[in-house]
Amino acid sequence: MLHDPNRVYVFDTTLRDGEQVPGCQLTTPEKIEIARELETLGVDIIEAGFPVSSPGDFQSVVEISKAVSAPTVCALTRANKGDIDSAIEALKYAKHPRIHTGIGSSDQHIKHKFNSTREEILQRAVDAVKYAKKAVEDIEFYAEDAGRADVVFLAQMVEAVIAAGATVVNIPDTNGYCLPDQYGAKIKYLKENVKNIDKAIISVHCHNDLGLATANSIAGLQNGARQIEGTINGIGERAGNTSIEEVVMVLKTHAALGLYTNVNAKNFYEMSRMVSSQMRMPVQPNKAIVGANAFAHSSGIHQDGFLKNRENYEIIKPEDVGFPSASIVLTARSGRHALKFHLERLGHKLDKDELFDAYQRFLILADSKLDINDDDLQGLMAAKLVKN
Amino acid sequence: MLHDPNRVYVFDTTLRDGEQVPGCQLTTPEKIEIARELETLGVDIIEAGFPVSSPGDFQSVVEISKAVSAPTVCALTRANKGDIDSAIEALKYAKHPRIHTGIGSSDQHIKHKFNSTREEILQRAVDAVKYAKKAVEDIEFYAEDAGRADVVFLAQMVEAVIAAGATVVNIPDTNGYCLPDQYGAKIKYLKENVKNIDKAIISVHCHNDLGLATANSIAGLQNGARQIEGTINGIGERAGNTSIEEVVMVLKTHAALGLYTNVNAKNFYEMSRMVSSQMRMPVQPNKAIVGANAFAHSSGIHQDGFLKNRENYEIIKPEDVGFPSASIVLTARSGRHALKFHLERLGHKLDKDELFDAYQRFLILADSKLDINDDDLQGLMAAKLVKN
Repeated sequence: MLHDPNRVYVFDTTLRDGEQVPGCQLTTPEKIEIARELETLGVDIIEAGFPVSSPGDFQSVVEISKAVSAPTVCALTRANKGDIDSAIEALKYAKHPRIHTGIGSSDQHIKHKFNSTREEILQRAVDAVKYAKKAVEDIEFYAEDAGRADVVFLAQMVEAVIAAGATVVNIPDTNGYCLPDQYGAKIKYLKENVKNIDKAIISVHCHNDLGLATANSIAGLQNGARQIEGTINGIGERAGNTSIEEVVMVLKTHAALGLYTNVNAKNFYEMSRMVSSQMRMPVQPNKAIVGANAFAHSSGIHQDGFLKNRENYEIIKPEDVGFPSASIVLTARSGRHALKFHLERLGHKLDKDELFDAYQRFLILADSKLDINDDDLQGLMAAKLVKN
Repeated sequence: MLHDPNRVYVFDTTLRDGEQVPGCQLTTPEKIEIARELETLGVDIIEAGFPVSSPGDFQSVVEISKAVSAPTVCALTRANKGDIDSAIEALKYAKHPRIHTGIGSSDQHIKHKFNSTREEILQRAVDAVKYAKKAVEDIEFYAEDAGRADVVFLAQMVEAVIAAGATVVNIPDTNGYCLPDQYGAKIKYLKENVKNIDKAIISVHCHNDLGLATANSIAGLQNGARQIEGTINGIGERAGNTSIEEVVMVLKTHAALGLYTNVNAKNFYEMSRMVSSQMRMPVQPNKAIVGANAFAHSSGIHQDGFLKNRENYEIIKPEDVGFPSASIVLTARSGRHALKFHLERLGHKLDKDELFDAYQRFLILADSKLDINDDDLQGLMAAKLVKN
C-alpha cells in the first residue's frame, strides 16, 4: 500500500455507532439517502451497519453497498465466524468492501466481559482476522477499550493482527476515558514499537464522555494515526462519537499540522441538518461548526470588533462550512455599532446624536425582550418620528 | 495570598458570557435564582454581568450581589474608567467583589479592533487595573484573544498588570482557536517567564469553536493555571464556552492529575436542567455529562458488557452527577441479555429456548419501531402465550 503521508482518511459511522442510539433508528431507504449524502460529502469509508444484529440491519448493509460507489462500505462484526459470515454476505454488492472485526483489549474487558485471558483473546483476534481475510482483502481490526488497555499488550495485539492481514488497526477509546496527552502517547508508542506498523493505517475512534473526543482524535493524528472515525453532529452511544465536522475543521484551521482530508466542508451545514432531522436528534445551538449559533455574534464587544474586521472574532468563515452567513443578533448586550449596522440595513441613516437617542430607547426595549427583530427596529424608528 | 496548589477555582460565567447569547436573556429574578443554585453547586466565582452594557444588566449585578454570600461576585468591564465606575457601583453590596477588566492582547485585536499599538494598549491595561484597584482589592485582568497573541508580548502584559495589582490573570482563547498543546505551552511559558507570576492565579477561559474548549482548559491546568472559567452546559458566544461540568468530571475521573475543585458534582443534573429551561437553550442528548443519553447504553455489545460489569462501559457513575440511573434502552441493536434484563424486570422468567424465541419476535418488532417500551414487551409475551 502506498499512502500520501499527509492524507487523513475519514471513516463515518453515523449509520452504525450513530444509528444504534435510542430514538435514532432509521429505515433502509432513510439510510440509503444519508449514505448517498455522505458520498457527496466525500468521506472515505461508510460503516453501514452490524449485519448479524438484526435482519433490518443486514438488509441496510446490502442496500447501501448497492447505492454508493466511491466510498468503502464497512460492516461491523465481533470476533466470531457467524458475525463475519453475515458481514461477508451483506457486503457482496460493495465495490470496496471492508470488514471491521475486533475484540476487547483492556484487562477490564478481558476479565469482566469475556471472562478470559490475554492469550486466549489474542488468539481469537488473530483467528477472526485470518478468517475474514479469506473473503475480503480490506480488514480493519478494533482493539476495544484500547484507551484503558495496557499499552505493551495492545502493541502485541496490534502486531499480531497486522501479521494476520489487518489493513487498518483501530485503537478505540471506547469509554471516552483518555486525556489527549495519554491517548497521543498510546498512538506514539504503537507507531514506535510495533515493528510491522507501517503495513497498516492506525485509526482513532474516540468517544465524548468527558468532552475530549475531538482533542483525542487530533492527538492521535499528531502522533501518527491517519484515519479518523466519527459521526455527523457527534451522535453515538452515550455522549457520542467524535464529530467529523470538528476534526476536519481543526485540520483546515491548523494548516501547520500538514494534514488534510478529502471532505467537502461546504456540505457540513446541509449534512448536519439532514442527519439531525432524519435521526430526530437535535443539535444544540452552541454545537461547534454546525450549531445554529456557531457563527452568531451577540455581545456588544464582539459585534463591534466583528464589524470593524471579522477576523477579530472569526477563525472560520461560516460560508466555508455551508452556513448562509454570520449573524449579528440584537439583544440587550449589543452595542451602538450593531444597532447602526441593522438600522442602515433597513434604510435608516442616523447621525451621532440620533444614534445615541435610538440606542437608549433600544436598550429599554431590549431589556424587556429576548431579541430584537426588524419589526421592532422599524417600530423604534417610527416612534421617534412621531415624537419629533 | 496562600493557595492550596492542588485547588482549582471554578469561575462561572453562565450569567455573563452565557446570558449574552441570542434567546438566552434572563430577567433579574431569573438570574438570582440561577445565582443561588450556582452557590449551592459550589462555584467559587459568579460573573454576574457587564454593568455598563444596559440598565437591566447593572441591576442584575446589584441584586445578585445581595443574594449570594459564599461566592465572589464579579463584574465585567472594558479597560476604561466609565465601565469600571459602573462595575464598582453595581458591586457595592457584594460580600466578595471582583472586577474583571481587560483589553485585547493579539496584534489582530490591537491593530484591527483598537487601531492602536502594543505600547499604548499595555498602558491602558495597567491604568485600568490601577484605577479599579483603588476601589476593589480583587482584580482579574483578561488579555483578550490571548490564544492568538504573541507570547512574549503577552508575558510582558501579564507581568505589568500583576505589578499593577491584578490578583488573577485570565488568558482567554477568545476565538476557540488553539490546539491543546499550543494552549498548554502558552500557559507554561507564562508560568516560567513572568517573574511575578506567583503573585496571581492564572485563569483559563476557552471557547469551543473547534470543539476543543475542555481539552484546552485541562491543558492549561496541567501547565499551572488554577482557575477555570466556563458555563453550565457550555452555553456562550458562538459555539459556547468551556462546560464546567466536563472540566470538573475530568479532574475527578483523572485523580492522578492531583487537582480538585469544590464543586458538588451531584448537583450537575439539576443545575443543567435549570439553566437549559430558564435560558431556553436545549442540551443535545449526546452532550457529555448532562445530555439525556450520556449514560444510556443501547447497542447489544455494550448492553451485554454493561450487564456483566458496569465498569466495562462506564467511567462515571450517573448518580455521581445526579442522574437518576444508567439506562438500558431496547432497540433493534439490543442483544438477548438486554431483552432478558427487561423481561425479568417485568416478571417474565424465561429459559434459554423461550428467550431465543422471544428474541426473534423482538427483532422483527424492533426493526419496525424506534424503541421498545414496556407495553410492547408485555404485548410480545402475551402474543406468545396465546400462540402456545
